Formats: sequence, structure tokens, C-alpha cells
Amino acid sequence: MNTVELIRKKRDGKQLSKEEIEYLVTNFTKGKIPDYQFSAFLMAAFLKGLNKKETSYLTLSMLNSGKVIDLSSINGKKIDKHSTGGVGDKTSLIITPIVAAAGINVPMISGRGLGHTGGTLDKLESIPGFKTNLNINQYKNIIKKCNAVMIGQTRDIAPADKLIYALRDVTATVESIPLITASIMSKKLAEGIDGLVLDVKTGSGAFMKKYNDALRLANSLIETAKSFNKKVIAFVTDMNQPLGNYIGNWLEVYESIKILQGEKIDDLLELSLNLSGAMIYLGNRASSLNEGKEIALEMISSGKAFNKFLEIVKLQGGDVFYLKHPEKYPKAKYHEKIYSEKSGYVQSIDTYQLGIISSELGAGRITKEDKIDPKAGIIFYPKIGSKIKKGELIAEIFTDRKENIEDAKTKILSSLKLSNNNFPKIKLIKKILS
Amino acid sequence: MNTVELIRKKRDGKQLSKEEIEYLVTNFTKGKIPDYQFSAFLMAAFLKGLNKKETSYLTLSMLNSGKVIDLSSINGKKIDKHSTGGVGDKTSLIITPIVAAAGINVPMISGRGLGHTGGTLDKLESIPGFKTNLNINQYKNIIKKCNAVMIGQTRDIAPADKLIYALRDVTATVESIPLITASIMSKKLAEGIDGLVLDVKTGSGAFMKKYNDALRLANSLIETAKSFNKKVIAFVTDMNQPLGNYIGNWLEVYESIKILQGEKIDDLLELSLNLSGAMIYLGNRASSLNEGKEIALEMISSGKAFNKFLEIVKLQGGDVFYLKHPEKYPKAKYHEKIYSEKSGYVQSIDTYQLGIISSELGAGRITKEDKIDPKAGIIFYPKIGSKIKKGELIAEIFTDRKENIEDAKTKILSSLKLSNNNFPKIKLIKKILS
Repeated sequence: MNTVELIRKKRDGKQLSKEEIEYLVTNFTKGKIPDYQFSAFLMAAFLKGLNKKETSYLTLSMLNSGKVIDLSSINGKKIDKHSTGGVGDKTSLIITPIVAAAGINVPMISGRGLGHTGGTLDKLESIPGFKTNLNINQYKNIIKKCNAVMIGQTRDIAPADKLIYALRDVTATVESIPLITASIMSKKLAEGIDGLVLDVKTGSGAFMKKYNDALRLANSLIETAKSFNKKVIAFVTDMNQPLGNYIGNWLEVYESIKILQGEKIDDLLELSLNLSGAMIYLGNRASSLNEGKEIALEMISSGKAFNKFLEIVKLQGGDVFYLKHPEKYPKAKYHEKIYSEKSGYVQSIDTYQLGIISSELGAGRITKEDKIDPKAGIIFYPKIGSKIKKGELIAEIFTDRKENIEDAKTKILSSLKLSNNNFPKIKLIKKILS
Repeated sequence: MNTVELIRKKRDGKQLSKEEIEYLVTNFTKGKIPDYQFSAFLMAAFLKGLNKKETSYLTLSMLNSGKVIDLSSINGKKIDKHSTGGVGDKTSLIITPIVAAAGINVPMISGRGLGHTGGTLDKLESIPGFKTNLNINQYKNIIKKCNAVMIGQTRDIAPADKLIYALRDVTATVESIPLITASIMSKKLAEGIDGLVLDVKTGSGAFMKKYNDALRLANSLIETAKSFNKKVIAFVTDMNQPLGNYIGNWLEVYESIKILQGEKIDDLLELSLNLSGAMIYLGNRASSLNEGKEIALEMISSGKAFNKFLEIVKLQGGDVFYLKHPEKYPKAKYHEKIYSEKSGYVQSIDTYQLGIISSELGAGRITKEDKIDPKAGIIFYPKIGSKIKKGELIAEIFTDRKENIEDAKTKILSSLKLSNNNFPKIKLIKKILS
């Protein structure tokens, strides 16, 4: 096969065969196709698209660039969840123990935060001692012991994805639905799962700002999962405001504990129950999504989910002391409160901006090299449609970076748009597809 | 400026500014923008297009990547011709002495052959001693002495073009009208010309197979030339059959001598007179294209053009003995004649194929490293619309490569499609634009 001919074929909008896509991915991963040819291919694929079959072939080639974990020695269904990322989205920390407590295996491999979004690994690592860089044997052993594990991507898993993503990042080829689909699915399929629940976010704090794009991505993910004979349910959910109120690594662990201990935090609880209910349903422990949600709620109220969380944390080397006594967790040097300067109904929230502010306070990475401060972040109270009074507490910030405080205050105030008119509350779950 | 943002802008079909295009070209040429980013930009430009302004900015940036030769110390107009390349196209060898004999400077910088097309430099170098790698001072001195010079591209001229072309070649981004335009015009403008005559070929032996593509390229070249205040005339001409009958380096020099000595070879003479007439007109030595053609014909019949050719060859170190006594030129080891196996009217000629056969016999390069055999090539007699009788001589081949003879014979026969029905002769000059 000839690389230039394959680039030309995609450039001209023709469909590439399984063998052709495999040739491109395999040889790029081996370093036999240079970056400059693969980036031309990526731009052609970005602009001309990849159809269902091509997306599935690309996923397969990326999956086969590394190891596919064999979990057949572990009894029971293996179900995972993937979220496309948002601000304050800590559901992974909540649903993993819920679903594991219900007897289903959750073999979760997660990523780190970048830009305006946090990462599950960074949140977990705010728990002292918690190890996310386990090898595949350790990964299997922990699942066997407690039905769940939460680790970072190992070098063996879909190495093509790492190389391709790095190239997309510098060639303006990130925002492509087929390329995003293959990136997500190649990593998730490598986990050895039977089924997958997807949370595709849309709104000001999501990668997919527009609902229709989120819907297209959800459908593309579903079609690809099905082409690999995986059971799949996708939720398209709102990300026009932070999920829950806490943004920042330890702050999000803390809010997760609150949920696992039975506190009713409207949106965060609703989404957590829906996602874990769907996982329990896909894991054959419930005959409907609703029954799944009931079981999920039961796992919380019985205390089983919180105990499962402690069990997972212990098995992964974490110190559970702070989970039981969160008030003892080290405090950020500065803790500032922000009050509303006027009254009105919340019309919109610049959620992307809140994510960036939280990163700038130390909670995230603006560039890949930045170090994370687990204590840093924001508590943000307003929700779209609610009424705010002048002088009301709207946010609290936590940081060691004194120099960033004033800027953060100004930006938080400007991220909140108030109106004299009443606004409807936002529907969190916009669509469920399978 | 941010390279990824500029790629994204073009990817999204937006217009890049002069400064943005200059940033991309300058930094790529300096090695500060890596190949993989520039190739993504090239693919985005290929698929989303560059408008008139962007094409002009790209040309300017590529022109400014190197030296622009200053010919202001030389009296008189400086007019050049550029052809997009075809099979048997030796007009550069004919028109340069014609136009120089008419008192206009022709500062020609040409390329080498690759694939199915020959290159002017390779043809000239079949004349023993002829030097094409002159420096800019030598280039100027020869023009001063004889009104013309024919050299190869120097390292100083549009270095960005060399780098960009090499990248386009391996990323399937060659066949783009704006990118072709900038490549041609940046080199031609660097010659320090006042005006340019363009010969854009279309048909089975041309890069632009389709007439409409050739017309678009001609218009793009004209618009770009005008944006630099250059006088320009473009011919769209037929390349569905070889121009003249001789294909191969010395063979084409030989056919050029025949024209310069007054022989009437229909199509080759017609195009040579038109192109040189247009150059004489742009050089203000004629008040119309027709008058220009008359002057051109006069330069031939008076012997001035042939004498000018001898003068140029001498000044560039060439031995004129063989130009005066072409029958003494070294002969290829094998000279084979090919006869038609049937009768009929010539319906079509696979001219691309003839170009490749000639290369395979030794006249050209299939890869850049191949060595040229100046004696090798084909004489091909049939013209579309003419009648061929079974047993009639249709072609002669000249080669040192015995092993290629049978294959060449078979391919030459198969390149000729005969029909029982009469076919019209082809109109050589399809359109003249300015």
C-alpha cells in the first residue's frame, strides 16, 4: 500500500477499507509513516469525515496497537462509564462504588484533567497515598477483591491513541466526531468490558457546546460500541452549569463523599443515580433503568456504596482517614467568599470560564507540565433559574496563589449573568439513547 | 500568532491575512513550524481553497523567502514563458532565440523532467558542454550579451517553494490550483520579469486533464500575475497528443533546430509562433498578437532565430557542432521501427503513456535519482483525426536499454486508439486569456 494514495483517497472523500486504515495506524504507530503524512491524513479525515465503518476500523486499529485486557477470569459482568468531561463532574467517584456494591465489576481506566476540565485521576490522587499507576495484574487483582478499580492509562493500552492525540492537538484536528469516537472507544474497549454507559455533555462547560453535535457524538459512540458487540447506553446531559457545587480535586472528593453518605444534592445525585442505574441494568442486575436507579439509591442508603468506596481506596493504597474526617484535610492558604453585587434570576453561567478559573487557582493544568494543588478550587452555588439576592453568598474560592484571587473574583462575578425575568431551570438529562 | 489557530482558521474556511500567511511560510521555511503542522495547513488549504488575495499573499511570501533578481541594469523589457508541462513540449528551446532575436530579453529559469514530462534543462544538457547551473552574475552577463539565458533554479530563488513542494509531493496536496499558482508564480516573479506568457496544457498528456481545471489554473495565474503588476497572457492549449513528433532530450533539440531552420511542423510551429508572438507583443515590439507572430516568423525565415540559438548555446558553454551537424550526434544502441497492425482513423492517443515510455527508454526520470540518457526517446507520427494504414510506420524508438524495447513497442501500439469513423483534428489553441 502507498501512504500518499491513501491520503489522496480520503482527501477525495472516498471510503478507506479496513486494511487501508490498519496500514495507516499501524505504520504511524511504528514510526514508519512520518508525522507530516499522518497529519495530512487527519486533516483530510477531519474535513471529509469517516463513515460508521471507517470509524469502527479506526477504533479497531487503535485498539490493536496495544493490549486488550482479558478479564474473562473474573466472574460477573464488567461495565464501565465514560464522560466526555465537564466542570464539577465527579460522577466517576460516586458511581464506581455504587455499581461495585451492587455486584457488578467496574474496571475503570481514566484520564487527567487539561484546560477547563478536571480529571478523575487528579481527584483520586488528592487522597493521600492513592495509587493510580498500577499494572495490569494489580488492576485485575483489585477488581477480583472488590469489583472495582480506578487507574490511569498504562503504556500498553492503545498506544496509537496517545500518538494520534498528540498530533491532533497541534494540527487543529481535535474536534472531529469520528476521531473523538475512535479515541474514546479504543481505550474503553481495551479494558475488557461487556458494556459501557456514556455521558455526553453539552453546553457552555462541555467540549461539545451544541446539543446536535453532542447527539451526533453519542450516536457515533453507540454505533461503534455496537460494531464491537458491546452493550451500550448513552446519556446526553446538560453542562451549562457545574455539576453539583464543588470544583477542584479534593473539593470534588468531598462532595462525592457527601452524596455517598446520603446527602441530596439535586443534579449530582440525579445524574449519579441515572448513570449507575444504567450500569446496573447493563450488568443484568436490574430489568429496567428505573429498577437500576432504585438499586443504586439502595446502595447509598444502606451505606454499602460508601463502604465500597473506602474498600477501593484502601486497596489502591489510599489513606481513608480524610474520607471519614474530611474536616481534617489540609486547608488552602486563602479562603475567600464572593457575594452577589445585584439581585436577579440566573440566566446563564459561563461554565467553561469557571473551569479555567479553578485551574488557575491551582486545581488544574493550563499546560501539560503544570502541577496540581489538590486543595485548590471553587464552591459555586447559583443554578440557572434560581433567584439570587444582592449580597448573597454565590461562591467560595480556595487557593495558595494570593496573586490570582482578585482576578478569580472578578471572573466569577462576570461568569454569572442575572436577569430581571424568571428563567426556567435546566433539564439535566436531555436524552437517553441506546 | 499561533500556528494551530491559523490551521484551524483555514480548516474552518476563513480567509487568512497577509501577515498570517507570511507567518506560516516564513516560519516553515526557517524550520520553526514543523512539517506536520504545515502539512495539516496544506491539506486544509487544498480542501477549503485559497481565494485570490490569499493566493497572492502566499506567492509573495514564497517569493520573499529568497532573492528577487534585479535586472534593472539591463535595457529593454524582460519577458518569460512558463508551460505547465507536457509530452514533446520543446517550445522553450524555440521561442527563447526567436524572442531574443526580436530584441526582447528572455531571462528563463527552468526545471527538470520528472515522471512523464521532460525538462528544458535536461534537453539543453544533451548539447555537449551546455551549462545550466550558472550563478546570478553569470545569468545577468549572458542576458546583457545576447538578450537571453536558460538556467536552472538556484538555491537563492524561492527556497520556500522547494520545501513546500517536497511536502506537497508526499501528502497528496499537489493538485491544488492556488498552491500550483503560488509555486509557479513565486519562481517566475523572482526572475525580475516585466511580463509573462503562460501555456497551460490540458488533455491526456497534461497535469490538468480537464479543460475546466486548466482554465481555472490559467485564470488564477493571470490574477496573481496582475496582483504583482505584471503583464500576462495565458494560452490554454491541447495536450491530447505529443507536441511535434519528437520525444526525448536530444531528439527534441533536433526538432527545435528543424523549426528554427524553417521546417513547417504544423502544431509545434503554430504554438511556437503564438507564444513568441505574445512575448514580442508583451515586450512592446508589436502592437498586436498577430503582428507579434509575423515578427516571430520573420525571425525564423531570416535565420536570425537560429543564429541566436547558436549564440546562446556558445555563451552557456555548449558545443554548436552538433547543432549544425545533427546527423553526427551519437546514436542510441538500438533503433527500432513500429508499424501499425491495423488501419483506421486516430481517435485518441494515451499521451501520458508515451511520456512514461520515453522515460523508461532512458529519456526521463521515474524517480528523482534516475540518470538521463540524452539519445533515448521516441519519434511518434500519428495525430488525432489522421488516417493510418495497416503496416504504416507509426513510431521509432531509440534506446540503449535492450530489455525495455518489447515492452515499449507493445505500449506504444496500445497507446494509439484507432476507429473506423472519421475523427476531427484537434484544435491546438483552445483559449487565449489576459
